[in-house]
Amino acid sequence: MTGAALRLQELRASFARQSFMSTLGAELVEAEAGRVRIVWRRQAALLQQHGYLHAGVVASILDSACGYAAFAMAPAGHEVLTVEFKTSLLRPASGTAFEAVGRVVKAGRNLVFCSGEARETTPASRLIATMTSTLAIGEPGRNAG
Amino acid sequence: MTGAALRLQELRASFARQSFMSTLGAELVEAEAGRVRIVWRRQAALLQQHGYLHAGVVASILDSACGYAAFAMAPAGHEVLTVEFKTSLLRPASGTAFEAVGRVVKAGRNLVFCSGEARETTPASRLIATMTSTLAIGEPGRNAG
Amino acid sequence: MTGAALRLQELRASFARQSFMSTLGAELVEAEAGRVRIVWRRQAALLQQHGYLHAGVVASILDSACGYAAFAMAPAGHEVLTVEFKTSLLRPASGTAFEAVGRVVKAGRNLVFCSGEARETTPASRLIATMTSTLAIGEPGRNAG
Amino acid sequence: MTGAALRLQELRASFARQSFMSTLGAELVEAEAGRVRIVWRRQAALLQQHGYLHAGVVASILDSACGYAAFAMAPAGHEVLTVEFKTSLLRPASGTAFEAVGRVVKAGRNLVFCSGEARETTPASRLIATMTSTLAIGEPGRNAG
Repeated sequence: MTGAALRLQELRASFARQSFMSTLGAELVEAEAGRVRIVWRRQAALLQQHGYLHAGVVASILDSACGYAAFAMAPAGHEVLTVEFKTSLLRPASGTAFEAVGRVVKAGRNLVFCSGEARETTPASRLIATMTSTLAIGEPGRNAG
Repeated sequence: MTGAALRLQELRASFARQSFMSTLGAELVEAEAGRVRIVWRRQAALLQQHGYLHAGVVASILDSACGYAAFAMAPAGHEVLTVEFKTSLLRPASGTAFEAVGRVVKAGRNLVFCSGEARETTPASRLIATMTSTLAIGEPGRNAG
Repeated sequence: MTGAALRLQELRASFARQSFMSTLGAELVEAEAGRVRIVWRRQAALLQQHGYLHAGVVASILDSACGYAAFAMAPAGHEVLTVEFKTSLLRPASGTAFEAVGRVVKAGRNLVFCSGEARETTPASRLIATMTSTLAIGEPGRNAG
Repeated sequence: MTGAALRLQELRASFARQSFMSTLGAELVEAEAGRVRIVWRRQAALLQQHGYLHAGVVASILDSACGYAAFAMAPAGHEVLTVEFKTSLLRPASGTAFEAVGRVVKAGRNLVFCSGEARETTPASRLIATMTSTLAIGEPGRNAG
């Protein structure tokens, strides 16, 4: 198994340990160096007061998509921690199926800059939110930050 | 009942309709014009890969705290929608009990600027995250944005 | 002259009134509905302590690029005011010539979401900063916000 | 001279090398560990299209205020580079004199989180903008980031 394939195996194991993604019903469907795609569906447990998806759900999944896009590019064994993110909520999330794509914009030795986009995919494809985030790379056995 | 008391009643009813806050175990404990406090506890369903609280949980509750701080100051019947937020994650959230306080920084006719702070309260009080956000005020029966 | 051509004429006149862009040596080189490109050069008056371009110079020009991208799409006579922006500084700006491109991501009735990218163009093309911003549209004779 | 006094001397020398602060007429008036205050005045060269101060001027000075608040707390000889900042523009800056205060919210080994507030001070004191930012600490002779 190549280093890249091992890293993606580490990534999938790490995502599987994020209990919150499973609470949100979020499924990792694509992962490669610098790009991760996660999909999820509307659920009654994830809404705000008007029946739209809560902005925090969208931000949480975008954060994981960006985080794992960075994780996929970091050296084996290294961990990634979110330093900060900003989300713009372009329109209410009224659909029934969604996807978030996170991408690495620039990877440095200690810090990685990412951007993400979230879309409704059902009933139609439209952009609902964007994110930019900064992540810190931590060496094995040593906290990032 | 005064206008202010009625508005806080609207606020509590609106918060109760946010199913996602209940999924997170978030409880609205204080609400007044321009300031809202929400508390919650660590749960196995809310974690990231190292067993810390997922950043998205903290951001989601900060977003609701800021949103309802704005809601409390908006005219009766008006709705509030988040336009954007940024969260800085100062340290991993490793504690067992938490609070988020949202405050209005400046309320305009159409837009409200808020800031929020999230703390671990158990085992000790320490700041774990900050947020700044912008919200749009919508007239009754008309979407904000 | 069409409405679109008139709007671009308004845009160029408005940009010319931004004395700060002229202080920075910033030149508007392309403007169309939803996209604006501005170029500028390194000057001794624009630096930080290590001789790189000050982050604020990059952010200022990105803000104008995003603002005029939004302006170009707003109805004739309407004004645009920045509500907030976030800039990520991917690497120190050590080059001698630069460009900023601002784009509209989503234009609503009252609010416009934009994103921008700044690049060094000399000695080589590389991305130095990104921005996301929110702008408010103001009707003629009435302040935005 | 104590270590703290030496660091403030380094800080003042570093600020004096920021040619852009001098272009903006910005004056460092207070500096201590974790808090810096900068003042400036309206000038014809710093405006946007309606005669208000350009948002980029406010952001640039807030960035320097936050950056030097972080610098003051970093070990002697260490440099500080802005990673990202977000500014909210609460109202148009129509006054004639201004101040920006930057504060350290949390200082880590590699990263510092800051917040800043900018006010008009003449004709009256009122908040015009806020900032949150992240900075990277660089060891002497080695770039941050």
